[in-house]
Amino acid sequence: MKTYIGIDLGGTNVRVAKVTSDGIVLAQEKAPSYGLEGPEKVMKNIKKLVKKIPNYQECLGIGIGVPGPCDTVNGKMVMSTNLKDFANYPLAAELTEEFKIPTYIDNDANVAGLAEALVGAGKGLPVVYYVTISTGIGGALIANGQVVSGHNGFAGEIANLIVDKNGEKLNHLNAGAVENEASGTAIVRKAKNVIKDHEIKHAGNVFELAEQGNEDAKAIVEKVIDDLALMFSMIAHVSDPWMFILGGGLMKSKEKFLPQVEERFKELVHVPMRNTLFVDAKLEEPGVIGAAMLPVSKGV
Amino acid sequence: MKTYIGIDLGGTNVRVAKVTSDGIVLAQEKAPSYGLEGPEKVMKNIKKLVKKIPNYQECLGIGIGVPGPCDTVNGKMVMSTNLKDFANYPLAAELTEEFKIPTYIDNDANVAGLAEALVGAGKGLPVVYYVTISTGIGGALIANGQVVSGHNGFAGEIANLIVDKNGEKLNHLNAGAVENEASGTAIVRKAKNVIKDHEIKHAGNVFELAEQGNEDAKAIVEKVIDDLALMFSMIAHVSDPWMFILGGGLMKSKEKFLPQVEERFKELVHVPMRNTLFVDAKLEEPGVIGAAMLPVSKGV
Repeated sequence: MKTYIGIDLGGTNVRVAKVTSDGIVLAQEKAPSYGLEGPEKVMKNIKKLVKKIPNYQECLGIGIGVPGPCDTVNGKMVMSTNLKDFANYPLAAELTEEFKIPTYIDNDANVAGLAEALVGAGKGLPVVYYVTISTGIGGALIANGQVVSGHNGFAGEIANLIVDKNGEKLNHLNAGAVENEASGTAIVRKAKNVIKDHEIKHAGNVFELAEQGNEDAKAIVEKVIDDLALMFSMIAHVSDPWMFILGGGLMKSKEKFLPQVEERFKELVHVPMRNTLFVDAKLEEPGVIGAAMLPVSKGV
Repeated sequence: MKTYIGIDLGGTNVRVAKVTSDGIVLAQEKAPSYGLEGPEKVMKNIKKLVKKIPNYQECLGIGIGVPGPCDTVNGKMVMSTNLKDFANYPLAAELTEEFKIPTYIDNDANVAGLAEALVGAGKGLPVVYYVTISTGIGGALIANGQVVSGHNGFAGEIANLIVDKNGEKLNHLNAGAVENEASGTAIVRKAKNVIKDHEIKHAGNVFELAEQGNEDAKAIVEKVIDDLALMFSMIAHVSDPWMFILGGGLMKSKEKFLPQVEERFKELVHVPMRNTLFVDAKLEEPGVIGAAMLPVSKGV
């Protein structure tokens, strides 16, 4: 049985697991990541955690998922906000040197998407696109068993797709970017602007109000449905996946918008593409499993 | 030296070539394809042409490029307009049976993109996106040495990307689809609507008039630049290629719009993505070479 080390490195915590090529977690360690204390402390801690895993020496490769875009060819992060001083730090090279096995790196959304594609909801399909909609919107393209990470690690940065040229310019994203129009954060922002007689804590409240007939909430939800359908159609025309695998907090309210998104999507694509599936992500720990799948996807 | 059979099957003509894994054409046959006379005649003709190639028996695999979307897994066209009765016809299986070597199929844009990615302008790069702009707009995503053809063969059908929600609904494409806003055909259509005192034969005339200061032509060209930049930004956020490889008739006028498209593109993507290259296609015969690259890309 081939096994691999998967590392899910976040700004706060880090998980290290020994995972089979089928995605079964055999052993796992979790600890604080010391993400704001610099690479030396972070890396020392990771090496210690790997060595706690029973028979870690049997593993054939290491994969590590990190919170930000990566230069996957050279095994470094391109930008890093939650891990201090990790931009351009030779993360993969250091682990390869320590453990004498190949190490691969990618961002957390790509890693989660890879897990779903290889051993989760998309198992066996040649092309899937993972989309997570929560406070933000992220994605990952997995084709022929590998993540398409892209030149700068920005493949899947679908947050920045323009769905409404008349949308507001709110932050570093494009005016009318889908994350600013249809993420959980966007839904709450829009609702708070117009709905004053109900407390809006999260996007779920807006979907509930729309269902109860609140006209302002209905208008917001209608627009979100249009914008998400347009986003999915853009992804489909570029990469035509067998399946969209959907994760993120907004899926908790999926019965209140996803069927309509799928209907609208069908109107925006060529007829044969109407067979594209929209399916829930199914793995509970895509972070460490997907990280371990990075060497698997490279044929290690 | 490994060699492969590449077949470029069009509605009018068919080319068959023996090609090395480096993309060198060693021998070539060209003939009418009899595309409107049905599969029996078309296939008989192709088999005869293959057998004219010196030492065709040495070839390890066959690739065939066809004018329309394909089910690449089952080796069939999904829809076919220029080749009568080829939708769902078991094209790849028939050639595999005849020549006893594996046969792969894909549409002509994907095949041309594969050629450029493996042995043309994008040689050695992990992810490239081929874009052809002429009467229509087509594309192809090539990642990790393989075409991403997609579930229905519609990956790369970027013609249908919506760049202007206020655009006209003109045909089977979406209202405001980029092909109806910024292809050669679209540029001529828009120019003929407003420019009455000059003859508009092709898009090049419109670019020339704009350069000469014609206000109507300038407005059309400005909009085309915005729409194309938006299209490229959509592709980049989904797949983040190292390079856009550009083909098609509109490139004849490229110095009159491409620099501006690149500048505008840089404003629409994340800062690190500004390094994305825009490069001319360089192969003279991407059709047969790319077809031959299909088995190469599958490891044959």
